[in-house]
Amino acid sequence: MKKLINAPDDVVKEALAGMEALHPELLRVDFENQIIVRADGPIKGKVGIISGGGSGHEPMHGGFVGYGMLDAACPGAVFTSPVPDQMLAATRAVDGGAGVLHIVKNYTGDVLNFEMAAELAAADGVEVASVVTNDDVAVQDSLYTAGRRGVGVTVLLEKIVGGLAEAGAPLPAVTELAKRVNEQGRSMGMALTSCTVPAAGVPTFELGEDEMEIGIGIHGEPGRRRVKLASASEVTEMLVSPILEDLSLKAGERVLAFVNGMGGTPLLELYVVANELAKILRGKHVTIARSLIGSYITSLEMAGCSITLLRLDDEMLRCWDAPVHTPALRWGR
Amino acid sequence: MKKLINAPDDVVKEALAGMEALHPELLRVDFENQIIVRADGPIKGKVGIISGGGSGHEPMHGGFVGYGMLDAACPGAVFTSPVPDQMLAATRAVDGGAGVLHIVKNYTGDVLNFEMAAELAAADGVEVASVVTNDDVAVQDSLYTAGRRGVGVTVLLEKIVGGLAEAGAPLPAVTELAKRVNEQGRSMGMALTSCTVPAAGVPTFELGEDEMEIGIGIHGEPGRRRVKLASASEVTEMLVSPILEDLSLKAGERVLAFVNGMGGTPLLELYVVANELAKILRGKHVTIARSLIGSYITSLEMAGCSITLLRLDDEMLRCWDAPVHTPALRWGR
Repeated sequence: MKKLINAPDDVVKEALAGMEALHPELLRVDFENQIIVRADGPIKGKVGIISGGGSGHEPMHGGFVGYGMLDAACPGAVFTSPVPDQMLAATRAVDGGAGVLHIVKNYTGDVLNFEMAAELAAADGVEVASVVTNDDVAVQDSLYTAGRRGVGVTVLLEKIVGGLAEAGAPLPAVTELAKRVNEQGRSMGMALTSCTVPAAGVPTFELGEDEMEIGIGIHGEPGRRRVKLASASEVTEMLVSPILEDLSLKAGERVLAFVNGMGGTPLLELYVVANELAKILRGKHVTIARSLIGSYITSLEMAGCSITLLRLDDEMLRCWDAPVHTPALRWGR
Repeated sequence: MKKLINAPDDVVKEALAGMEALHPELLRVDFENQIIVRADGPIKGKVGIISGGGSGHEPMHGGFVGYGMLDAACPGAVFTSPVPDQMLAATRAVDGGAGVLHIVKNYTGDVLNFEMAAELAAADGVEVASVVTNDDVAVQDSLYTAGRRGVGVTVLLEKIVGGLAEAGAPLPAVTELAKRVNEQGRSMGMALTSCTVPAAGVPTFELGEDEMEIGIGIHGEPGRRRVKLASASEVTEMLVSPILEDLSLKAGERVLAFVNGMGGTPLLELYVVANELAKILRGKHVTIARSLIGSYITSLEMAGCSITLLRLDDEMLRCWDAPVHTPALRWGR
């Protein structure tokens, strides 16, 4: 295992300390509760927004804490759900009196633990709403999930909904928009290589030198099928076709196109994929109105990519363009 | 070779097409001259700023084209200098009548070709100034260089100098600031794995499962020494000590700390390194006034990192904070 770490058990804690050291103007880390909170929160009268999940997907979610996006994030151990206590502490920490939205990726542990935290917070008198993302068209159920997995749409949703909350919208409006973004977005990913969980020390799965996995999950869990290595053009087609079909995109519609790296794939290759994606969408007369490219929802050092398409409406577009200032996404401020 | 590409010879051209498809509001690609230019340029009365170098280091330099940073970038083939014709075309394309600054990383081919382009542009009547970055403390000479290599400081310099040019400063002031940034910045990098140039199809060098290379260059060229794998704490010390010594940083000074990924190393590990860096600087009573973390100057999919420290003065700080809007760096606008 070749990694820039000290002891495997200290990776998450030390990375959090690194975040605080580099971004003190944006966030602080509550090490006792293992949560990352906005430096200027809680903000009175603003809907609080929290998310969380296993570590190993950076910058998601801690890198999205700051103005215009998340008020707090709850990082679990690598590829392990955070516990209800973290989520409860985060909910309390961000409550400004206008209620709190939980953004939950659809993995069994995350869903159960966020539900428990929501109940405990409600007993405290905090109004909590939840949205569960389940945008991965690759598989119906999986190793970690009943139903579709929550993947790339989560990143877009956190930015869009964060923009609406920052503008002062009430909890029902924020929750409604969150559900709409999830409904209008679809994703699919693939891997060229496995990743290695630090505490395990060996690759999560084996993939031959001439093989790739189509429909992979963000924990290295199996996808739709293992196939021979193919060109970027063929890979992009394999990812985009199921998305287009599921989303029923029509000529004249506009999307936010998100080309995501899994952690070990360089930007040069992501742009080659972006070119293939743009060609396919041009052929369908679908407009790329906005885009995001880079490694935003990752699987440690896995090589591969995912594609997310989000059908945009005017409110989503306005909230996407709204100012944001977090470690990983920043504009307009 | 596992890569998301089509034919190896088409990678750069297709990636450029992907950039144009995803960022039409920021840049356009002149495919005939193989240059990336600002969508809204040339800007009358503004000093034009161009840079360039081999591809494979993305987002550098094309990802820095846009408001407040570069007016154009000249990408060569992977790890190969662009040719004088590209640089000449870029110089002409960005000339708004106030002269053009060439930002050149110190590699023999880049330096010679930019010199030739500058002479040709001067013959056209365009005023051209140049700055050569040479911030890598690892080696005095190298496979590709007489003198120190230009690495991480180039990214910071392009942002800072771009900010000054956008504010309307004349060419001598922009050039003077560029030279000062180069003088006040130092870098050093390391690799856990090699990278594979697409056209070569095999790793650039071999590194044992228990080995790493300290002082590596951004083309996989050898560094100071090959050593046994060490902890993030030890690796960070090996990179930072030579920087601190060369830069003679004193207690009470402030720096911009740049923790850079080589392309295949995930953000989680970079934050572990950032934590170690912050501890070392705290011990020296040096303040991290600004930071940048992520994969900004890369070697394809190489795993590893580099650290750059830049001693900040007030003008640099003001120009760093100034608005920027490029594919890879964006804030305040």
